[in-house]
Amino acid sequence: MMNSHDAASPPTGVEIERKFLLLNVPEEVLAAPGVSVRQGYLVVGTQEEARIRQADDAYTLTVKSGAGIRRGEYEIALSREQFASLWPATEGRRIEKRRHAVPLPGDLVAEVDLYDGPLAGLAVAEVEFVSLDRARAFEPPGWFDADVTDDGRYKNAALARDGRPS
Amino acid sequence: MMNSHDAASPPTGVEIERKFLLLNVPEEVLAAPGVSVRQGYLVVGTQEEARIRQADDAYTLTVKSGAGIRRGEYEIALSREQFASLWPATEGRRIEKRRHAVPLPGDLVAEVDLYDGPLAGLAVAEVEFVSLDRARAFEPPGWFDADVTDDGRYKNAALARDGRPS
Repeated sequence: MMNSHDAASPPTGVEIERKFLLLNVPEEVLAAPGVSVRQGYLVVGTQEEARIRQADDAYTLTVKSGAGIRRGEYEIALSREQFASLWPATEGRRIEKRRHAVPLPGDLVAEVDLYDGPLAGLAVAEVEFVSLDRARAFEPPGWFDADVTDDGRYKNAALARDGRPS
Repeated sequence: MMNSHDAASPPTGVEIERKFLLLNVPEEVLAAPGVSVRQGYLVVGTQEEARIRQADDAYTLTVKSGAGIRRGEYEIALSREQFASLWPATEGRRIEKRRHAVPLPGDLVAEVDLYDGPLAGLAVAEVEFVSLDRARAFEPPGWFDADVTDDGRYKNAALARDGRPS
C-alpha cells in the first residue's frame, strides 16, 4: 500500500490486500518503532478517492479506484509545500495513526495501524499479496481478529469521515 | 478559475463566477490565440472533485468543493512528471478545449472555452467576479446565450463523464 511508483512508467498497479481488526496488539508490535502518518481525503467518490498523506517527512498523493480486495492505485510524491497547500482541503476528513511493519511467515508483511486522535484505540492490520490465490490461501496469525477487507466502515476514507464503527 | 495560489498561504479561495452558453462565437474570438487545455478528473464526488490540467506547458492539480455560484478551490502546480503519473487515473473522464481570454467592459474577462474531441462544437464563457453583488448585477454581452451557471450538465466534470447535453 505504501509502494511508490516510477514516474517513467505510469502506475497502473492493482493492490491485492486483506484487512483484519486487532483487538489485542502484541507488546512487541507496540514497542517497535513506527512511522507517524497523517492523511486527509481531498475527495471521496462512490468508487474512487483521492488522498494526501504525510509519513514522517515523506508526502504523497494517492488516487484509488475500485473497492474490495482488488483496487487500482496511482501515487505520486509531493513536496512539503504542495502538501501544505492541499491539506486545508481535507478538513473534516482526516486520520492520524502510527504504522508498524511486522514481518509474517511466507515473506509477508503486516502493516499494523494504531489509530490516534478521535479513533484512538482502533487497530487494524493490512497484508498485501502478489495474487488473489495467495490472498485467499492466507492463514492469519492468532493475534488477528475479524477480517474486515470488505467492510466499508473500516476503509480509511470512511473512518476519516464517519469515525469508529460501533 | 485559473488563478494559482501561493504555497506559503494555503488557498482557501472561494470562486464567484457565472457560466453562459455560446451559440455563435464572434470571429475575433475564434481568431485570437488561445491556450490548449486538456484536463481529466481523478475523482468526482457529490460536492467535491479533484482534477489535473495541462494548459500549454503548465500543469496543475485542483480540488473543488461546493457547487453553484460559490465554490471553494485549492490548487497546486505539478511537475510534468507528476502530471504524467496521474493522467492514466483520469481515463474516461477527460476533456480537451481551447481557452481564450476575452476582455469585457468593467475590467471583467470572459474565459471562452471551445471544446474539442467528442465535445467539438460546444462553446461556453465563464466570468469571475469579486463579489456576489457584482455577479448578480452582471449584464452579459449580446453574444452570450443561456446562463448555465447552475446547470450541472455543463460542469466540466459532467461534460467529461457524460458528454454534451442534448
